[in-house]
Amino acid sequence: MPGNSFGQFFKITTFGESHGEALGVVIDGMPAGINVNLEDLKIELKRRAPGQHQVHTARQEADLPEILSGIFENKTLGTPIAVIVRNTNQRSHDYDSLKETYRPGHADITTILKYGFRDHRGGGRASARETLARVIGGYFAGLIIPKVSTYAYIQQVGPYKLVNPPKDHSVDRGEINIPDENMTQEVISFLNDCKNKGESAGGIVAVSVKNCPAGLGEPVFDKLKADLAKAMLSLPACNGFSIGEGFRFADHLGSQISSHSEFFGGMEGGISNGEEIHFNLVFKAPSTIGEKAKNGRHDPCVLPRVIPIVEAMTKIVIADHFLRQSAYDSFLP
Amino acid sequence: MPGNSFGQFFKITTFGESHGEALGVVIDGMPAGINVNLEDLKIELKRRAPGQHQVHTARQEADLPEILSGIFENKTLGTPIAVIVRNTNQRSHDYDSLKETYRPGHADITTILKYGFRDHRGGGRASARETLARVIGGYFAGLIIPKVSTYAYIQQVGPYKLVNPPKDHSVDRGEINIPDENMTQEVISFLNDCKNKGESAGGIVAVSVKNCPAGLGEPVFDKLKADLAKAMLSLPACNGFSIGEGFRFADHLGSQISSHSEFFGGMEGGISNGEEIHFNLVFKAPSTIGEKAKNGRHDPCVLPRVIPIVEAMTKIVIADHFLRQSAYDSFLP
Amino acid sequence: MPGNSFGQFFKITTFGESHGEALGVVIDGMPAGINVNLEDLKIELKRRAPGQHQVHTARQEADLPEILSGIFENKTLGTPIAVIVRNTNQRSHDYDSLKETYRPGHADITTILKYGFRDHRGGGRASARETLARVIGGYFAGLIIPKVSTYAYIQQVGPYKLVNPPKDHSVDRGEINIPDENMTQEVISFLNDCKNKGESAGGIVAVSVKNCPAGLGEPVFDKLKADLAKAMLSLPACNGFSIGEGFRFADHLGSQISSHSEFFGGMEGGISNGEEIHFNLVFKAPSTIGEKAKNGRHDPCVLPRVIPIVEAMTKIVIADHFLRQSAYDSFLP
Amino acid sequence: MPGNSFGQFFKITTFGESHGEALGVVIDGMPAGINVNLEDLKIELKRRAPGQHQVHTARQEADLPEILSGIFENKTLGTPIAVIVRNTNQRSHDYDSLKETYRPGHADITTILKYGFRDHRGGGRASARETLARVIGGYFAGLIIPKVSTYAYIQQVGPYKLVNPPKDHSVDRGEINIPDENMTQEVISFLNDCKNKGESAGGIVAVSVKNCPAGLGEPVFDKLKADLAKAMLSLPACNGFSIGEGFRFADHLGSQISSHSEFFGGMEGGISNGEEIHFNLVFKAPSTIGEKAKNGRHDPCVLPRVIPIVEAMTKIVIADHFLRQSAYDSFLP
Repeated sequence: MPGNSFGQFFKITTFGESHGEALGVVIDGMPAGINVNLEDLKIELKRRAPGQHQVHTARQEADLPEILSGIFENKTLGTPIAVIVRNTNQRSHDYDSLKETYRPGHADITTILKYGFRDHRGGGRASARETLARVIGGYFAGLIIPKVSTYAYIQQVGPYKLVNPPKDHSVDRGEINIPDENMTQEVISFLNDCKNKGESAGGIVAVSVKNCPAGLGEPVFDKLKADLAKAMLSLPACNGFSIGEGFRFADHLGSQISSHSEFFGGMEGGISNGEEIHFNLVFKAPSTIGEKAKNGRHDPCVLPRVIPIVEAMTKIVIADHFLRQSAYDSFLP
Repeated sequence: MPGNSFGQFFKITTFGESHGEALGVVIDGMPAGINVNLEDLKIELKRRAPGQHQVHTARQEADLPEILSGIFENKTLGTPIAVIVRNTNQRSHDYDSLKETYRPGHADITTILKYGFRDHRGGGRASARETLARVIGGYFAGLIIPKVSTYAYIQQVGPYKLVNPPKDHSVDRGEINIPDENMTQEVISFLNDCKNKGESAGGIVAVSVKNCPAGLGEPVFDKLKADLAKAMLSLPACNGFSIGEGFRFADHLGSQISSHSEFFGGMEGGISNGEEIHFNLVFKAPSTIGEKAKNGRHDPCVLPRVIPIVEAMTKIVIADHFLRQSAYDSFLP
Repeated sequence: MPGNSFGQFFKITTFGESHGEALGVVIDGMPAGINVNLEDLKIELKRRAPGQHQVHTARQEADLPEILSGIFENKTLGTPIAVIVRNTNQRSHDYDSLKETYRPGHADITTILKYGFRDHRGGGRASARETLARVIGGYFAGLIIPKVSTYAYIQQVGPYKLVNPPKDHSVDRGEINIPDENMTQEVISFLNDCKNKGESAGGIVAVSVKNCPAGLGEPVFDKLKADLAKAMLSLPACNGFSIGEGFRFADHLGSQISSHSEFFGGMEGGISNGEEIHFNLVFKAPSTIGEKAKNGRHDPCVLPRVIPIVEAMTKIVIADHFLRQSAYDSFLP
Repeated sequence: MPGNSFGQFFKITTFGESHGEALGVVIDGMPAGINVNLEDLKIELKRRAPGQHQVHTARQEADLPEILSGIFENKTLGTPIAVIVRNTNQRSHDYDSLKETYRPGHADITTILKYGFRDHRGGGRASARETLARVIGGYFAGLIIPKVSTYAYIQQVGPYKLVNPPKDHSVDRGEINIPDENMTQEVISFLNDCKNKGESAGGIVAVSVKNCPAGLGEPVFDKLKADLAKAMLSLPACNGFSIGEGFRFADHLGSQISSHSEFFGGMEGGISNGEEIHFNLVFKAPSTIGEKAKNGRHDPCVLPRVIPIVEAMTKIVIADHFLRQSAYDSFLP
């Protein structure tokens, strides 16, 4: 059942249940001698943390990262970097009623079917809290590819859709990662409404990557689009991934494609071509609704907080493929 | 740059360029003592082969599989199974003009960017012909999970969409893998028209899997949805994957989801729940259009032939996860 | 540079420098529902710890394991088990003089050659202290194969050799893991003498495994002997491994072998045959000698403390192969 | 049960039974644009082939390699290289009597214990004939590290031991890979005698590697010594591996080691230090003795033919680690 590692060269192994002692990650394959800034890491974690905005769950998780290994005098050693975050605000008894309850759309029943045993508190290993380990991994991945710019944003929440995509990565994404001030206010109002009603909503995330080197992606199975797809579908509540034009490709005839290189999303044959990478993800509405959703510590929508996680997984995939390709650099003509 | 293996326990390693000597696959991790029927394998390959129907390319590839190892007295030995298919009908000189041409949407330029060198004939390793190795792998995967039924079909080609999804896996998919007689005729006519005009079309494939055991999928990175996504996005021309309701989840509020377990596509928390698995894929229109597409040996649309390949990759993922889970069976209560 | 994971199904990932915050291990692939006893784990760690006997280094490391994840109500969850041990007694300044010193036979110079940067304190990642993570892994591996008995002992230290190998696993191994009372006293005296002189010694370890199931080991590269060899040669100071008769096979003619199935060390063709597994390891004398060895916190010989580590790695290999083979159990006739 | 792949970056996957259709290898991770010389490959295979000398088995296997993929215009494409060798001289009926016979020291009984089914002809997958796939892999590995010189030789056969080790890699190894003319003649005479008597012999191989770059090997599990140990112990009949002084380290006190850097065999902390790498292997006598050994097509000793195989595995390990380290080159100060 091992399935908690991701990556070949930049490899993360994550661990932790939402109501256990701690969550954490071991990063193996980090180059040596790279400067690390713990404050930058904390900023990334804060972007993911609940309680940043009123539409978010009221849980006040401190999420303080503690580095256990792999760094000496603020530089990476090339040895495994282990970082943990203690679970400090668990209120596990809130979940006592869930012990015998299997919520639809959660991993509750499938965890029992698979393991025969589970930690019912707060989703256990299946909690979205697991993703903070990915954000830590993403911070270190970003240090390997400092020139690559990764920019994710909300494109749709429930009935609200972004009309004008942001022109570049400098566009402010506001309080909840929507690069449009009007839509931001509408969505905040809508989500507050959801919260009050015990309702929840899904939506679509868009990701843009600039300055990704050409030549990344390994045919025929480890294509860049394939590894990005796996990275994204491994996220809780993510149910779809598409690259470039995605599902709109079903409607495009060949003659409508050939002159639009941007349709391909920055890769051809699954290998990055040096252009802007563009892909989309869909997240479903949280399954917890009704009275529980009103009172509990639940977000009515995962999208605002999912943005830094998506960026982290993107950086992990690209850093990994960057190292994989670098091994062959000296053989290129 | 290794990237030509897929799977952890049921593991395929594929090789071959479209105009090299042969394509093939090595299957490692096959259980011993399983009966093999070469005729069944040939049928699978024939489903993928060109020339089955008038809308397909005119290339007459024989695609005769030759088993080199791993089978003795028609039974698997548990040792690696190597199967090759010779390239017999290559007409490599047809491609001389492509030596210095980089076609948009193909791996042509990215292959040069990555390797600095390429076999320009017929796409080389990036040719869709590579997928016959996957079909062979899928045949053997199917022997591991004989009760699992995998059924893929065309849901859309260009402007034509399937209105009534098939009720079960016994519905005839006709000449081009569309489970609707009227739509089949319309699409054939449309694609013949495309061919005559040098036009091409994309579309959407739907996949249904029945009788998949519950408990498959390994959190947090090797979730069943994640490995299916990777498998599908590794296919040439595939640009999107979605599970269950997929991108429609963006429009569904939580209250609309909770009573529809079928929306989750047969998995919760990335682990199969024993219900029907359902997912969708999008394929783009072939990039070759215009005069070349009229005269050349090119399909105007990949969807009719992609069905057995999609089924093969599905079976490979499920067989692999079935073996992974089986290792722990004796520990279940 | 990732190289800190071991195993396919029972997989450990270790981290930590000897003078960093903590050392630890993440165990992925543990079956769910298995009872865990923290006291048993502490006993294993204590066997490895320094200060158990006068011949050992005087460092008083507490080595208290802290379980961060993967266990709930004293049972394994099937999720990754993370265990850390804080470094509490480091006296890092003892090592200031080593900052610019590269000791022969240590990883000092090679770490610089490889990474360009190092933590010079106490060997950093190359410290033998790293092995406590393996002991933790070994404890959990043992829970998977409770019937398998692993028994390692010292066969030689410097000039002292064990004449009568122990008849079975119940023979007491005394204070320093030598199953012979006289030799124990001679070696203690010899090592005290070494310590006083600033001298050091190497030696040979023997390992016996009983009740290992038949059929473990995966041809042709992951043979049981091959994975045991890798496991052992990955230990600091280990410079040789041999199975069964080992290097004595050079002197045996075929006619002398064929009637002695015990010569094969419990495996044929690299697959366990159900008989007693037997192998040997050699460890070199610690490179630190002279005045530093007298005053410092250095063992004059690694062998007494290496025994539980060797047993741990043995259990990790066997548990991993047990799970690998279990995946195919249902296909056996 | 997958276990037929070796290496992370330079990765070989082998297949084939001794009496099946063919044996072969798929090499994934080969850099692109490297010149390939089929004649050089044939020379390597000929070194391994039987029938080169009178002391070898009389089987006249042609062992003609056929390249199926990965090479275009005599250059590597960076895609998987598949090479097969047909089995042409099998005389499978010679083995009919073995169908129900389990030879001691062979994989016969353990194959049944593991798989429940086997190909009894000539050892099936467990035949030493499997190693020709490794020799092919070694040829391509050597192209990646052209400056590295690998030189293996016989150090002992039965009672005959090499007194003066060769001074450098230019010393002629004669007909049976012994770098000493007198010993060569004695061993030939001894092995002919063995053959006539139905006797067999084991021995020791020494390996010297020059010009291996410093910094190869990945702590803590993929140390260079660990991966070499695994590579060697995966060879049929190999029962021991030691690096540098190996088992002699048991007798050396620390004071005898510290001034002899050559004792460490070219690595410290499991990482190559740029000095000559030196290690030893032991091979047991073939188990087939008596009348069968006289008449059959069996070598009385594997050592003369094992030399090119050992060199191949050595090159595979070093090429793999060279690529692994190369991925991080750009980060070195």
